[in-house]
Amino acid sequence: MLTLKEIVAALGGQLHGQEDFAVHAIAPLNTAGATHISFLAQPKLIKQAEETHAGALILAPRMFKLLQGKLSSAVAVIEVDDPYLYYARLSQLFAHSATPSKLLRHPSAIIAADAVIDPSACIEAQAIIETGVVIGANCRIGAGCVVGQNVHVGAESQLHPRVTLYRDCRIGQRCIIHSGAVIGADGFGFANDHGTWVKIAQLGRVLIGDDVEIGANTTIDRGALGDTVIEEGVKLDNQIQIGHNTHIGAHTAMAGCVGVAGSARIGKHCMFGGAAMILGHLEIADHVTVSSGTLVSRSINAPGMYTGIFPAQANADWEKTAAVLRQLPDFRQRLKALEALLAQAGASHHKE
Amino acid sequence: MLTLKEIVAALGGQLHGQEDFAVHAIAPLNTAGATHISFLAQPKLIKQAEETHAGALILAPRMFKLLQGKLSSAVAVIEVDDPYLYYARLSQLFAHSATPSKLLRHPSAIIAADAVIDPSACIEAQAIIETGVVIGANCRIGAGCVVGQNVHVGAESQLHPRVTLYRDCRIGQRCIIHSGAVIGADGFGFANDHGTWVKIAQLGRVLIGDDVEIGANTTIDRGALGDTVIEEGVKLDNQIQIGHNTHIGAHTAMAGCVGVAGSARIGKHCMFGGAAMILGHLEIADHVTVSSGTLVSRSINAPGMYTGIFPAQANADWEKTAAVLRQLPDFRQRLKALEALLAQAGASHHKE
Amino acid sequence: MLTLKEIVAALGGQLHGQEDFAVHAIAPLNTAGATHISFLAQPKLIKQAEETHAGALILAPRMFKLLQGKLSSAVAVIEVDDPYLYYARLSQLFAHSATPSKLLRHPSAIIAADAVIDPSACIEAQAIIETGVVIGANCRIGAGCVVGQNVHVGAESQLHPRVTLYRDCRIGQRCIIHSGAVIGADGFGFANDHGTWVKIAQLGRVLIGDDVEIGANTTIDRGALGDTVIEEGVKLDNQIQIGHNTHIGAHTAMAGCVGVAGSARIGKHCMFGGAAMILGHLEIADHVTVSSGTLVSRSINAPGMYTGIFPAQANADWEKTAAVLRQLPDFRQRLKALEALLAQAGASHHKE
Repeated sequence: MLTLKEIVAALGGQLHGQEDFAVHAIAPLNTAGATHISFLAQPKLIKQAEETHAGALILAPRMFKLLQGKLSSAVAVIEVDDPYLYYARLSQLFAHSATPSKLLRHPSAIIAADAVIDPSACIEAQAIIETGVVIGANCRIGAGCVVGQNVHVGAESQLHPRVTLYRDCRIGQRCIIHSGAVIGADGFGFANDHGTWVKIAQLGRVLIGDDVEIGANTTIDRGALGDTVIEEGVKLDNQIQIGHNTHIGAHTAMAGCVGVAGSARIGKHCMFGGAAMILGHLEIADHVTVSSGTLVSRSINAPGMYTGIFPAQANADWEKTAAVLRQLPDFRQRLKALEALLAQAGASHHKE
Repeated sequence: MLTLKEIVAALGGQLHGQEDFAVHAIAPLNTAGATHISFLAQPKLIKQAEETHAGALILAPRMFKLLQGKLSSAVAVIEVDDPYLYYARLSQLFAHSATPSKLLRHPSAIIAADAVIDPSACIEAQAIIETGVVIGANCRIGAGCVVGQNVHVGAESQLHPRVTLYRDCRIGQRCIIHSGAVIGADGFGFANDHGTWVKIAQLGRVLIGDDVEIGANTTIDRGALGDTVIEEGVKLDNQIQIGHNTHIGAHTAMAGCVGVAGSARIGKHCMFGGAAMILGHLEIADHVTVSSGTLVSRSINAPGMYTGIFPAQANADWEKTAAVLRQLPDFRQRLKALEALLAQAGASHHKE
Repeated sequence: MLTLKEIVAALGGQLHGQEDFAVHAIAPLNTAGATHISFLAQPKLIKQAEETHAGALILAPRMFKLLQGKLSSAVAVIEVDDPYLYYARLSQLFAHSATPSKLLRHPSAIIAADAVIDPSACIEAQAIIETGVVIGANCRIGAGCVVGQNVHVGAESQLHPRVTLYRDCRIGQRCIIHSGAVIGADGFGFANDHGTWVKIAQLGRVLIGDDVEIGANTTIDRGALGDTVIEEGVKLDNQIQIGHNTHIGAHTAMAGCVGVAGSARIGKHCMFGGAAMILGHLEIADHVTVSSGTLVSRSINAPGMYTGIFPAQANADWEKTAAVLRQLPDFRQRLKALEALLAQAGASHHKE
């Protein structure tokens, strides 16, 4: 529970309404009740804002003007430039106020004698911290995590339970890593010896910048010789696979199930829809958006949005489309032949 | 080992044969031996049934009639309406008879003092049960599981080793959750602040109904504000990703590697083939089947089967098809031009 | 650090240069320094080889000849038939020299009294070894692994932290299994009872041959009745899903995010690009290569490369392509109509 006064003190904005109004939770416009705060981020939802039962609203100045006279006088308003961004910050405030404190070092954690752990860091039950590890201030190392030899974790970073960090990897400050993530497993590299695969030991590391978030069960492989690098501010959703020696530029975001093959070099401020696949050794420019389900098999040198999706159809229609698809090269021939025939006919016609 | 008498007593069906015949295992028709029971679920396999060496067979009445005189008189038969369903129930009977008992509370488990755990529940080695947790009767919490604060797990539910349940989630009765699954990690939500992503704290929960099965390394994200909901009887295979605030209707089944983006609303009794992808904020009606590898980018309002797969070809053929694919819009123009030319020619011809 | 003498003693090759030259690391040609060894595996990189600052080079005889006179006389050369293969073996030598020894049995590991564990095996912190397990010589069972009842792990196999092996599975010798992998979870099998799914207990096992590598968070399901089989030398990358009763032939390699549905039978020496999907009950011949992102929906009986990818385009172009794609069956009709018309016109023309 937070009062509007506490909220505005922490996050700014101009308050119109009772300072001591107590907000119990954030809720969407259409389900909010009298003790909730809501926000209007998309102009098309203005009708919902008119009819909301929320006790408080976060509004941009233009929307606030449009809604004046239409809102109940009981509704408090926080006027801010970017309501969605304000909602993001407010959600963190609520999350923070709900987080209970834990034992700083659970006695069941197994911590190497030479590990350097900031006294403010919380090491949860059965976490394993190996030799040479360095853990910064206010970190959380969740239950059952395994932090391999010589790993460094920067201040304020949060590892949820059951994260595995292989040896020598580096995690920046204020990172969040979700359960089941595996950072630094071997890249997929083999030499072929007469049909048998000979393993190429993966001698590089994974280097992760500040403010990176990594989703549940996501995997990031260590480099073969050099390192795999994830720059600051990158956000990776769940179940993503990042191959060895990949380099991902700052503030790039990838939705769930994306795969990136080895040695890809991806720019800054890119966005990848779910299950997009990037083949190896490609370069992707800054500010590129790749649609969900799109496989990128060549480098992309210019910003913009790129797509390659087979449109879903009713199955019977798809069967017809797919059957004809294989005949496309033949269609081309036939089109050409028809055009040639008509050109000739036209010519001969004129001659006649 | 079960006798036919025990099987029929537990599962019903009309027995033709020796009650005290001891069945050692279930086996497919073509590999079964004299101590095995097999089943005929597809009429096209009737030839295999004729030639099977199984000691006992599960048959539908029609198949039993067709096979009479063709089976060795030594073969026992259980006559049932739906042999495949009977096989499913029988497989559970065999699995159950093979499950050894374990210590109810392994001393290495770490259980919060205020957790409410039914005395019949089995908490395996190094499981971690946090404060406020409620665990129902006859549950199994596998080795190394982490059950977060205030999680409730309904009676008879089985968590295999190394499952993670984030705080506040609800698991119904008789659920099965496989190793590596992560339930309740943060949804993927950020607001953009001049190119930098600001995290939206994920304040909702995951609510899972009764009789849900969740595969190995599957991830289900908690809601941003409201909850992510998986209704009763849903079956999720391995490596599935369910985004925040998704709602999946009862008895829907999804094969491995499916991805569902945030806020999708999926109906009851749907089926999704492997690696199908559902974009966010879509609605899928009840009784919809989506083929493997199909990306659904628009809502589907009518039951039926939907597909969007690029057919695999020999690579040289595919290269030709793919090259021509990009010329399709051009083909349309050329077709139109030819048709116009011919229409004109036809007209002028008639005029001549 | 290894001297050239030690390297050649271990791996062979003809040394041209100082035996006691100390190599600190392997590095790519373009980043190597004076204490590094590098290798030339692709003729197109010969220019990089000329200009490298590496202190030592691994070269094939032909390249050695081409480079003579162009390399600094200070550069040592190891002449070998296959530099890439030699690099693979050398990388293992470096990895091995860097691996520290660990306690053979961490006191926090929980080991069933009847488990048979070779005295040379290393059981790390909080690993759980259940009843009936057999672990071979020189195995490593990583921190937090769960090795289920009656599992056998062959000599020299390495389980990284947090691997789960369900009961009764078999792991061959010299296998490597990465963190988060789950071997032997239930296959996805249900019978339908008037809209409700009834679980088919999965009574088979997973059998894994020698020299198999399994990537992080990869899942391999146990068989329903028979076993799921992975033959020797198979290499599976991260986040792969292998359905129940699949059979994968020896020395087949699969890149990340591949999915294989149940009962597929895949040949030897096959290669699958990332995110390739193989539907159930298919057969794939030996020596088949499937491109990344390709869904295989029919059996493949002949060796070769197979592809089915929708080419990525700038989004605006894709929208045009996709819109026309649905009209393909219509195009076929119109092409046919035009051809018929022209044939007729040609005929009538001749008649005239």
